Amino acid sequence: MPIRQSDLDLAHRLADAAGEAIRPFYRGELGAEIKADHSPVTLADRAAEAAMRRILDAEAPGDAVHGEEYGAKDGVTGRRWVLDPIDGTRSFTVGRPIFGTLIALVEDGWPVLGVIDQPVARERWIGAAGRPTLFNGAPARTRACREVEGAILATTSPHAFNDDEVPHFLALVAAVSGGHPRQGPVYGGDCYNYGLLASGHLDLVCEAGLALHDFAALAPIVEGAGGRMCDWNGDPLTEASTGQVLAIGDPARMDEVLEALHANPHDHHEH
Amino acid sequence: MPIRQSDLDLAHRLADAAGEAIRPFYRGELGAEIKADHSPVTLADRAAEAAMRRILDAEAPGDAVHGEEYGAKDGVTGRRWVLDPIDGTRSFTVGRPIFGTLIALVEDGWPVLGVIDQPVARERWIGAAGRPTLFNGAPARTRACREVEGAILATTSPHAFNDDEVPHFLALVAAVSGGHPRQGPVYGGDCYNYGLLASGHLDLVCEAGLALHDFAALAPIVEGAGGRMCDWNGDPLTEASTGQVLAIGDPARMDEVLEALHANPHDHHEH
Repeated sequence: MPIRQSDLDLAHRLADAAGEAIRPFYRGELGAEIKADHSPVTLADRAAEAAMRRILDAEAPGDAVHGEEYGAKDGVTGRRWVLDPIDGTRSFTVGRPIFGTLIALVEDGWPVLGVIDQPVARERWIGAAGRPTLFNGAPARTRACREVEGAILATTSPHAFNDDEVPHFLALVAAVSGGHPRQGPVYGGDCYNYGLLASGHLDLVCEAGLALHDFAALAPIVEGAGGRMCDWNGDPLTEASTGQVLAIGDPARMDEVLEALHANPHDHHEH
Repeated sequence: MPIRQSDLDLAHRLADAAGEAIRPFYRGELGAEIKADHSPVTLADRAAEAAMRRILDAEAPGDAVHGEEYGAKDGVTGRRWVLDPIDGTRSFTVGRPIFGTLIALVEDGWPVLGVIDQPVARERWIGAAGRPTLFNGAPARTRACREVEGAILATTSPHAFNDDEVPHFLALVAAVSGGHPRQGPVYGGDCYNYGLLASGHLDLVCEAGLALHDFAALAPIVEGAGGRMCDWNGDPLTEASTGQVLAIGDPARMDEVLEALHANPHDHHEH
């Protein structure tokens, strides 16, 4: 089913409301707490999700809602709004303007609409199945990448990979950097990296341990800008995906990137 | 010798000129090249340093100048301007607004004045010996930190540490995170991390491999905001420092941070 304009409009209103809720807390009162999973939550996370849920309860009462902070609400339409009020809460708490609000619409398990909104810099990416991704209203396109070596790879934190995942990540790092640490990944960035990839400023993002609310919004944005988003096996992301995520700006590099990720890391130390 | 107002005014003019030179290239034409040391340089780096050197040649012709891109010019005053037109060039090239122009005045080997300027967000920290650090004209202060465990630690990239340094860095990570990966360091950020520390948004920065142009501007800013900047032995930074750098927002934690950095890493795995 094609995305309706009314759903895009609703997504914009959700992002507007989240931004209004977040901005007063930026570099101000955080009320930061550590949750049971050791991730942080702030007053701004809670205020922004509550603001979005109020709008959904009023305007889309039959849709299910899944939010990072306030859990799941069932629906009757087969549609589910997936909300992450602040992706990059640690970036938010240290006062960096590169966190974002993530809003996704998932239909029958597939993410079909996504928003990344940066409320401080007032930057917004919106993507939807069958439509070109927009950045602040103008079309966004990924860039060409002729070789994996030299590609700019971003990831938020090396600590996000578990012991089984680390060798794969390092094999990809070796492939892009040619073994030169200064040509290694750009760290930090959370969802903002995927927006920058969609706009053609970097080539690859490789992450693991992402939850549905972390990645659902990203796939429509990256794909609508001409890139590919998939799991570490190259399969499209669905709500059942495990959280190992790849974003590839130039689809022509997809096979090589997957090959690098699954190469024997020892092959690369010889470079 | 106390810093003169005329030197502060000159530093502001240098930062203004660098920002004007950089902004047109942001998310635009990069002209990026990889230098012999595998670090990147762009048209914006070169234009910004050239703009600053033109001002120094005209207004402070007797002062020495040391710039990242155009090398050293000798002087006759014992004063040396140390310029890094874009600290965080990789962040700049991927379109993140958290790189910065660094400007330092070094007298007899000691950094006595520093500027961190973010030309996209239009944010500027300026610090000078004996004066309170200012952020966009208002006093900046570091925050209190009651315990090393739970302190927010930032660093740009794990690949900046050499094999001898990695165990020390990981020992500090273990001390702040209590062993929980999600409470580990915030990555990325370059000079911006030191500004955020000066403004009380994070507690610690630990890095290695920094050159004089990377750290000279930071010490006056951090110290003028109430923090401490030192090398990994706790000694103050001079132009002879080796590039292992610590910034500590709350000086009361300095001994514990140094102790954590030099602890046997195996002690921490037991947590």
